[in-house]
Amino acid sequence: MQSFTYWNPTRIHFGKGQIARISDEVPADARVLVLYGGGSVLKNGVMDQVRTALAGRAVFEFGGIEANPHFETLLNAAKLARAEKVDFLLSVGGGSVADGTKFVAAAALYDGDPWDILVERGRNVTAALPLGCVITLPATGSEMNRNAVITRASTQDKLPMNSVHVLPRFSVLDPETTFSLPPRQTANGVVDSFMHVLEQYLTYPVGAKVQDRFAEGLLLTILEDGPVALAEPTNYQARANLMWAATMALNDLIACGVPGDWATHRIGHELTGLYGLDHAATLAIVLPSLLTVKRAQKRGKLLQYAERVFGITTGDEEARIDAAIARTRAFFEAMGVRTRLADYGLDATAIPAVTEKLRQHWPVPLGEHRDVTPEAAAEILTLAL
Amino acid sequence: MQSFTYWNPTRIHFGKGQIARISDEVPADARVLVLYGGGSVLKNGVMDQVRTALAGRAVFEFGGIEANPHFETLLNAAKLARAEKVDFLLSVGGGSVADGTKFVAAAALYDGDPWDILVERGRNVTAALPLGCVITLPATGSEMNRNAVITRASTQDKLPMNSVHVLPRFSVLDPETTFSLPPRQTANGVVDSFMHVLEQYLTYPVGAKVQDRFAEGLLLTILEDGPVALAEPTNYQARANLMWAATMALNDLIACGVPGDWATHRIGHELTGLYGLDHAATLAIVLPSLLTVKRAQKRGKLLQYAERVFGITTGDEEARIDAAIARTRAFFEAMGVRTRLADYGLDATAIPAVTEKLRQHWPVPLGEHRDVTPEAAAEILTLAL
Repeated sequence: MQSFTYWNPTRIHFGKGQIARISDEVPADARVLVLYGGGSVLKNGVMDQVRTALAGRAVFEFGGIEANPHFETLLNAAKLARAEKVDFLLSVGGGSVADGTKFVAAAALYDGDPWDILVERGRNVTAALPLGCVITLPATGSEMNRNAVITRASTQDKLPMNSVHVLPRFSVLDPETTFSLPPRQTANGVVDSFMHVLEQYLTYPVGAKVQDRFAEGLLLTILEDGPVALAEPTNYQARANLMWAATMALNDLIACGVPGDWATHRIGHELTGLYGLDHAATLAIVLPSLLTVKRAQKRGKLLQYAERVFGITTGDEEARIDAAIARTRAFFEAMGVRTRLADYGLDATAIPAVTEKLRQHWPVPLGEHRDVTPEAAAEILTLAL
Repeated sequence: MQSFTYWNPTRIHFGKGQIARISDEVPADARVLVLYGGGSVLKNGVMDQVRTALAGRAVFEFGGIEANPHFETLLNAAKLARAEKVDFLLSVGGGSVADGTKFVAAAALYDGDPWDILVERGRNVTAALPLGCVITLPATGSEMNRNAVITRASTQDKLPMNSVHVLPRFSVLDPETTFSLPPRQTANGVVDSFMHVLEQYLTYPVGAKVQDRFAEGLLLTILEDGPVALAEPTNYQARANLMWAATMALNDLIACGVPGDWATHRIGHELTGLYGLDHAATLAIVLPSLLTVKRAQKRGKLLQYAERVFGITTGDEEARIDAAIARTRAFFEAMGVRTRLADYGLDATAIPAVTEKLRQHWPVPLGEHRDVTPEAAAEILTLAL
């Protein structure tokens, strides 16, 4: 196990009816900006619960935050926050709204060009407005981490930031808020959280048994209950397990003392930035090919994954690895998330722009061995055609 | 899954050499009381590292905190803390020192009879001195939770307390500090952390898949690396895995959304309070018999435990449960912790005093079904003769 520091002070309120707990979490004299997305929370009763919980406070609302939240949109929210002297932000929605809220929290207090926050990946953030989340789509883990990913639509740049200052003070996770998710969003969330685990698990062994088994536990849970949530959208137990798994998948816990990969995410971000693919779709496209190309470097963990997650114990090592990759692809496809570039109308001509963006955004090669160069990314994407 | 609130803001510094991080954690102008136990930390170099990290601060030291820390001893530490106007406590040792430090943190600021803190189980604590831990014996999880267990020697009462105010600000976990542990302490720590998981796992199913698999991951890790640590005391990886498992076993995480039992601990505390048995020994004695007596109530989880932790899949259900209980007992014995009252020189005449203390300390019956009455405890102990 590698040495590490772990600190995660976000308070989680989990379960049916927990949105009411916001009234204990947001100061009674706060000026609150509530941020949300396309408006589903206005229809499914979530916003009503939020407004009730915030009663008595000065509340402002900012809607229309997109999937892959746009820098341009968020600047307007930051402007509103400043103009109204807001002192608390509340994200109501999925990971995109949470990510956007984090950026607004930092941008509202940032002197200078806010794009620099993303260029510097958040390292230059020294303060942010306090924020909380009501999460309605289990996927990004944003509700209990320091990360956000923001897209500048005008230049097709999608970049991550990370700052302790944007860690949510609290998050409310009510599985019932996910009952009305469209199947595509449910599926995307399942694939995204599954991939978050794999980015921290499918690297190389360092003897970290607890972290490995926690990761495997999350993978098994998502594999089991992902299809259940698609088939039975109001199955509380399945929704609850997926929601808690998504949070645990990316709250720094399973990252403790182990290497991380994240090449699939970085390559995927460029596909979204350039071609507008759903985030989960990009992961489902890139991962199987990345595992194929990097099978030697990931051999030990691929064999462990094959055995412990899929129960594959027969055949020689190469066959077991092939089977694990095939099972992974089949899971994504079974969730309705296609795994080939061609499925999204893209061919080989789409690849050079991706490698060019990677070259711009990541001066050092990606992956746990820092060996996923732009050329390697091109090889991976070619295999994913 | 049941609803829950989770919040654990303790910062963890894990790994070789991390004791130096104390210098970042304890304010430079702090007046620090360092608490320790029997003195092993003076011999194995741990205290030297602590003193170096605290250089420049006013440091006071208080040694001699016992296993199952004594209320009487801790009052002297609280007196010293008040007299020297100490404003930070640092525990250097195992769970007993950490528990004792928590009590001192509360008692130093408590007006009134400090025994009331334990009578009230910590509910009446409204403030405490800030504290940190350097943990040198993975076992209690005290380094990342709100709990402490204190023994009043004069009356043979051993009682738990729980307060958010005594949650450590930070804890340092350096696996190398455990290399010099005597085998008995290593074994006790292994049994204790294993039991912490079982208290939160072997109850009844509530469909909480993540928590179940996290618990099983901890159990498997402890089962594997417990014997390794006994056989190879300086095996860093085994020590590291046991250390992280012990912290994760009792930092509220696997308790999220599931019922807890804790009857084994409560009965065990009385055995320690009355007869001075090691804490782990009392758990090893009580648990196999408790599982036998409560096998109907715990049936679903016992079968899951048999399959997922011990790989027991053949035989009828009763046989699988019997095998799981036998394997559990055999694990404790293999660690050198005996599992019968007779092994510790106790016979049936020891039991009535235990049930009498339980009656005094716990007005409501114990266990996840609140059905472990003093009479049931007597039945369990009789089976454990």
